[in-house]
Amino acid sequence: MSASDQENVRFSKGLEGIVAAESSVGYVDGLAGKLVYRGYDVNTLVENCDYEEVSYLLLNGELPNREQYKDYSSSLRKKRQLDNDTLNLIRDLKDTHPMSALRTVISFIGARDNRSIEPDLETQKSISIDLIAKIPSVVAAINRAHNSKEFISPDDDLPFSSNFFYQALGRRPDKDEAKMIDEALILHADHGMNASTFTSMVVISTLSDMYSAVTAAISSLKGPLHGGANERALALIQRVGKPENAEKVISNMIASKEKIMGFGHRVYKVYDPRAKILKKFVETVTKKNGQENLFLTAEKIENIMAQTLGSKGIFPNVDFYSGLLYYSVGFDPSIFTPIFAVGRISGWTARSLEYLSDNKIFRPRGMYVGNRGPKEFIPIDDRQ
Amino acid sequence: MSASDQENVRFSKGLEGIVAAESSVGYVDGLAGKLVYRGYDVNTLVENCDYEEVSYLLLNGELPNREQYKDYSSSLRKKRQLDNDTLNLIRDLKDTHPMSALRTVISFIGARDNRSIEPDLETQKSISIDLIAKIPSVVAAINRAHNSKEFISPDDDLPFSSNFFYQALGRRPDKDEAKMIDEALILHADHGMNASTFTSMVVISTLSDMYSAVTAAISSLKGPLHGGANERALALIQRVGKPENAEKVISNMIASKEKIMGFGHRVYKVYDPRAKILKKFVETVTKKNGQENLFLTAEKIENIMAQTLGSKGIFPNVDFYSGLLYYSVGFDPSIFTPIFAVGRISGWTARSLEYLSDNKIFRPRGMYVGNRGPKEFIPIDDRQ
Repeated sequence: MSASDQENVRFSKGLEGIVAAESSVGYVDGLAGKLVYRGYDVNTLVENCDYEEVSYLLLNGELPNREQYKDYSSSLRKKRQLDNDTLNLIRDLKDTHPMSALRTVISFIGARDNRSIEPDLETQKSISIDLIAKIPSVVAAINRAHNSKEFISPDDDLPFSSNFFYQALGRRPDKDEAKMIDEALILHADHGMNASTFTSMVVISTLSDMYSAVTAAISSLKGPLHGGANERALALIQRVGKPENAEKVISNMIASKEKIMGFGHRVYKVYDPRAKILKKFVETVTKKNGQENLFLTAEKIENIMAQTLGSKGIFPNVDFYSGLLYYSVGFDPSIFTPIFAVGRISGWTARSLEYLSDNKIFRPRGMYVGNRGPKEFIPIDDRQ
Repeated sequence: MSASDQENVRFSKGLEGIVAAESSVGYVDGLAGKLVYRGYDVNTLVENCDYEEVSYLLLNGELPNREQYKDYSSSLRKKRQLDNDTLNLIRDLKDTHPMSALRTVISFIGARDNRSIEPDLETQKSISIDLIAKIPSVVAAINRAHNSKEFISPDDDLPFSSNFFYQALGRRPDKDEAKMIDEALILHADHGMNASTFTSMVVISTLSDMYSAVTAAISSLKGPLHGGANERALALIQRVGKPENAEKVISNMIASKEKIMGFGHRVYKVYDPRAKILKKFVETVTKKNGQENLFLTAEKIENIMAQTLGSKGIFPNVDFYSGLLYYSVGFDPSIFTPIFAVGRISGWTARSLEYLSDNKIFRPRGMYVGNRGPKEFIPIDDRQ
């Protein structure tokens, strides 16, 4: 496009409202408060399925039958173990930002897999399954290294989410915790065309490879405008500290127009369906882990917010509860965004594979608004 | 957006023709065959400036005066050296795809830089200069490791491009070679909103960091639809082998509608201005390095293509000559795409910084075309 015909083009910053791709992986209905994966309401899925089934559904379009489930589940289990070079790299990166470590380690695993040079769909799908299997082990190991603890080998008897919990925290979850972590990961598996998912699609569209796409998605998720909100929501709950403080702190924040982390959502104008699902665990899990005070504080904050801003469509979002839940079972806040990646890996790979199956490279236009030139060249010693 | 209001939205696949951002970094005028950086025609820049000046121009909007140039150039030189951990990682990755190695190493360098958690513009600009300084050393070291050769320390007396040549190949370029590699890198420094540049902007828009943005850009450039065309153009020239074969091979390829790598361009409908600039080096540099036969073969291919398809606006593009030039001075074809990154690093960082200075997260819409549901849940043992 020449500079001259750019003048009258309008554009929408951040591509807001612009359709970037068709998809049948899932959608968010912000007005109805609905999150749908492959036609299933996410409420149906968390009630009836585990993460492995949902992951299979996102990748393949249909829920697995018993045999497909067994095959998929066993292939995930076979690929969980990380090799020593990878574990050594994680140890070397123990003092870094966990998302930078995750980005580097996933790239490293990809660099050592020769399949990453074959852009065909079957190979990239097979890499996707490897990534779904390995990313929980990587995040768990990063958490261990970050806390100067020994790595823990996967337990083949545990399904996806419980094994992640075990490898990260060094203890097996009880029944409530197992259900909580599994539902939380299901609820993070896909969420429309968010920035990290879109990043992975742009990368795969060059016929790069799934390791590159996921490395790039992690690069995107690292940004505080995307990942990290639950870490800040928990920090708010901790700062309020006890229920009696909530009224004062929150009304001061509202008065000074500070953003209350964990409330409101760009897409949802009603109660975030994910928050509603996670909320049922908060009392049980926090009490069991001696964090009842944080639960009561969070409850109080929610009540104050509902009275003050509920009529404006500002409700708790998924981040308000997820951080509190992760923290109460023993996860360090610095690992919350990597946990997001453990869930979202299925959405990243499912949507990248879908795009690759009918590919066209992403190559939008820039609207040139600078000096049209040609600018006159001034020799270096004559420049001001 | 609800599923129900998505039905009538049209979209443009790959975002073709959609404006994704305003920019004053540069533009491509495909009909006039013009490439402009910050208002300067690229022909003016290659005639009068070196890569460091152009890189400064892209980052800062203006060409440097003498003092600014000295400061910038000396800060680049100070940051060239890689530490032992980074060199060890490059050695460990010597057998991998060089772009996967580059992606991993840049991510690794970023993981060990604490500034990567500060999303402010000044910090990210400072990281950008580090990346511009270090990426040539990383690519040179990857090239050395890939060819099982010892690493070479930077030579502080050499400017950007000559030092890259020296660290990669182990010999200092002569005058023609120094000018050739410098012009080639200038010509690759920016090129509108291509997929890798766009990727870096999407990543920075989450307030992630410049290491993440560049890691993601490398992930994108790795794809054969984006980087890698010069490697395949050289392979074609080598396959033709001698001028006498050109007529037969090329007309057969045209007859069977095979893509002739290095000809035609999605944007340029006239002679690619970058090809025109690089062409002047081909005869001198190939002859000097004993590759005259490849030069004569390339010349013959170009003549046949001009006679056959020139009237359709199909001309050599930058990739037709760059690969041949790099190869004739001693670069392995596997390192061509990483060399592309050495040039493009200035465009990636300049456009990411520009976007960050007036940021809005990229979050396009997906158009849901799948099952609207809610699908009825069937228990696993009843599924087909």
